[in-house]
Amino acid sequence: MARTNTLGVTPQSEDFSAWYNELVLKAELADRGPVRGTMIIRPYGYRIWELIQGELDRRIKATGHENAYFPLFIPEGHLRREAEHVDGFAPELAVVTHAGGKELDEPLIVRPTSETVIGEAFARWIDSYRDLPLLMNQWANVVRWELRTRLFLRTTEFLWQEGHTAHASAEEAAAEVLTAVGFYEELVRDCAAMSVIIGDKTPGERFAGADRTVSLEAMMRDGRALQTGTSHDLGTNFSRAFDITFTSAEGVVELCHTTSWGMSTRLIGGIIMAHGDDRGLVLPPRLAPYQVVIVPIGRGDDLAGVLDAAASLAARLQEVGVRVKVDDREQLSPGFKFNEWELRGVPVRLELGPRDLAAGTVTLAARLAEEKEQVRLADIAAEMPDRLTAFQDALLERSRRFRLEHTRNVDTWDELVEAVSTGFANALHCADPACEDRIKEATTATPRCVPFDAPDEQGPCAACGKPSAYGRRVVFARAY
Amino acid sequence: MARTNTLGVTPQSEDFSAWYNELVLKAELADRGPVRGTMIIRPYGYRIWELIQGELDRRIKATGHENAYFPLFIPEGHLRREAEHVDGFAPELAVVTHAGGKELDEPLIVRPTSETVIGEAFARWIDSYRDLPLLMNQWANVVRWELRTRLFLRTTEFLWQEGHTAHASAEEAAAEVLTAVGFYEELVRDCAAMSVIIGDKTPGERFAGADRTVSLEAMMRDGRALQTGTSHDLGTNFSRAFDITFTSAEGVVELCHTTSWGMSTRLIGGIIMAHGDDRGLVLPPRLAPYQVVIVPIGRGDDLAGVLDAAASLAARLQEVGVRVKVDDREQLSPGFKFNEWELRGVPVRLELGPRDLAAGTVTLAARLAEEKEQVRLADIAAEMPDRLTAFQDALLERSRRFRLEHTRNVDTWDELVEAVSTGFANALHCADPACEDRIKEATTATPRCVPFDAPDEQGPCAACGKPSAYGRRVVFARAY
Repeated sequence: MARTNTLGVTPQSEDFSAWYNELVLKAELADRGPVRGTMIIRPYGYRIWELIQGELDRRIKATGHENAYFPLFIPEGHLRREAEHVDGFAPELAVVTHAGGKELDEPLIVRPTSETVIGEAFARWIDSYRDLPLLMNQWANVVRWELRTRLFLRTTEFLWQEGHTAHASAEEAAAEVLTAVGFYEELVRDCAAMSVIIGDKTPGERFAGADRTVSLEAMMRDGRALQTGTSHDLGTNFSRAFDITFTSAEGVVELCHTTSWGMSTRLIGGIIMAHGDDRGLVLPPRLAPYQVVIVPIGRGDDLAGVLDAAASLAARLQEVGVRVKVDDREQLSPGFKFNEWELRGVPVRLELGPRDLAAGTVTLAARLAEEKEQVRLADIAAEMPDRLTAFQDALLERSRRFRLEHTRNVDTWDELVEAVSTGFANALHCADPACEDRIKEATTATPRCVPFDAPDEQGPCAACGKPSAYGRRVVFARAY
Repeated sequence: MARTNTLGVTPQSEDFSAWYNELVLKAELADRGPVRGTMIIRPYGYRIWELIQGELDRRIKATGHENAYFPLFIPEGHLRREAEHVDGFAPELAVVTHAGGKELDEPLIVRPTSETVIGEAFARWIDSYRDLPLLMNQWANVVRWELRTRLFLRTTEFLWQEGHTAHASAEEAAAEVLTAVGFYEELVRDCAAMSVIIGDKTPGERFAGADRTVSLEAMMRDGRALQTGTSHDLGTNFSRAFDITFTSAEGVVELCHTTSWGMSTRLIGGIIMAHGDDRGLVLPPRLAPYQVVIVPIGRGDDLAGVLDAAASLAARLQEVGVRVKVDDREQLSPGFKFNEWELRGVPVRLELGPRDLAAGTVTLAARLAEEKEQVRLADIAAEMPDRLTAFQDALLERSRRFRLEHTRNVDTWDELVEAVSTGFANALHCADPACEDRIKEATTATPRCVPFDAPDEQGPCAACGKPSAYGRRVVFARAY
């Protein structure tokens, strides 16, 4: 049996999967819903989502996109109008057949994604080139009936944002795809502190109905990949299916070029697995519900003074924009609280006791540091924003280094198999689906993307020796 | 056929219902979804919702409530555990019977409200009195299959927030019910500029499963009532059904007392109908997507200067926190734009032409005023926040006066019938359901609430002459 820490989480180093499952529950990020595969996002997890939403929504709006809300239910017939799309989603659909006490004439699909229902609306709203580009986004829940589910990573219902845009030209649509990638890149790097690779999906891994899918792929602490956002160029596939046309300045009726892009609550699973360690979560300060927790220590008369000092310190931290909590729960020991806030990944813990007060100091325990520090009580609030920024930067740098240390250029089958067992493999690849299948069967690894920033390179496929496609190396990895 | 204005909306005074339906579409607040009774909330309408969310969410969090997210799907069996609750909602349920390509063993209900799924989670999370009060809220979509639907007012799917709390005592739960009413009162009065009455629902109008329901009732411009928020004391009904218990400080296992409270996208329908007029919407500044629209006027060389001045004015307005838009669409005439922004209810329109520029003035058209005003260009940005506050106050005062002018104390059947044809009737009432039914049949009016602030009064029921119940007058009205 695996060892467990005080709060009962299997160490990551012993069983990554058990560590993850236990941590999500014990840190009170989420809980299981009553229906198989569904999730309750608890306040601590939901606050992370709200912080993600705030950061992303601001970027989406700053580039001229507007939020809207489209219906949950899609008539079955709508989904069938784009053939590849329905083929891709058919096995995962949840279907409403009865409503208002009667059987419905046409079953309703609970949206797995909204291209079809939005496509129909776009067709009605767009008339002339003056209506373009049409740039929309929605924050919504979607349902995909998955066989194997895991909290945050793969749940029957999840929360996300989905951007949907229509453009007058292929060039504008192509630029939009990258604008969205830019949001995600900033969010993931600057807020989630995750170093990612960005590139094109290979044809077999594209969104159902897309001409091109760009994805961001982060590396988890077990070396697996997790997709943290995708952006799709839908070409004229959906505008043809839904008749999304416009009259050009020259008076010609043309098909629009559309895009869609999304980021979901999966990202929270990514944050857990990209940064967490044996002691629990490590939250990046910019997305941490509490950036600082103050644990007052003391008994009897001493405690009253400590609690006052803690409240005053919390107020000063709030003044400089720090999200802070004073953990004044009476029934729990300081040691239990230390473990709990480590488990819950709070970046900085401040321990404040009567001796600290007398000395004008406070004990600071940073979640990434081995040693505690004594710092001056009078200065710590003013210093905290810089300390949190340094913490954020260190976390990103650690993520970058970890990814590079677990990524290898591979040129042979054996090297490929070996590399994907611990991380990412950069391999020249023939683009033959049969070759992809063989790799997947042997290793469970799949092509994650063809990175934008990989150098031009040609040569034999690492797996089968046939000439390479794509003009550069493809990243293979096992993925969540 | 009714007359229509330039943008084609039937005047409110000729056909209120047609006015509403056309206005929602023409102002681009919402559109119909492909499934009967569903709604697309377009960016202009969704922005109002975001502003409502911001105002309400802040108040909810400031009082210690935390946001969370619970699943969309509820097992059918869960809903049956509270008997009154399932009876109330059964006719309106949408049911998922198939998912992942198979028929499900147990059908899933698409949540019409979340007491049951949240109740089950509360039962797991609450252990001791130290876990109480548990104060949660979620922003979510819900589905109720309505026979007669109307955009915003009654849609198959709508957006709302639902608060759910558990307490150690009946007193604390009762206080919580009023805390939530306090949020709604502030939101509706200070942001939506609607003067409401607040009071208890009569037993026949309570939430299914509640011991007590408090509602806020606003008056629309046609004299009908619209409920703008409800707060329910659920007593121990749900904690009994879901086994939500706690161990008290004395070591005794007791049932929790729970509450729930909600406010939805219906409020947007209320804002439209409480303030709108023949020319279209009138939006309260605090919830207006654009508080000020600048319409530049001019041709050729003149226009460039005007556009520069408009951009600079917009920047100054933004600096003082005003939400402003410069309508620089080239293909439309100023006159068209004036009508359009009136239709869309923008509180203040600023018209800026070469002659204004030369004179250092700008023409100001307030949405509630008959006459335009010339104001000094140099001063208007600094003055605008106060002007918007004055607009907001005037709108609330107009709403209050309208409600009072259309409310009558009635003591006879004839007076009651007459009063509810144009507004609210304050009537002593016997509380007999048969008497309520008779009133409803004759007038379609129902008891809206028993206002908190009505004076104590007894006497014969206005409808049937039997002795009055409730100890004060009940408000009867036709309602949305």
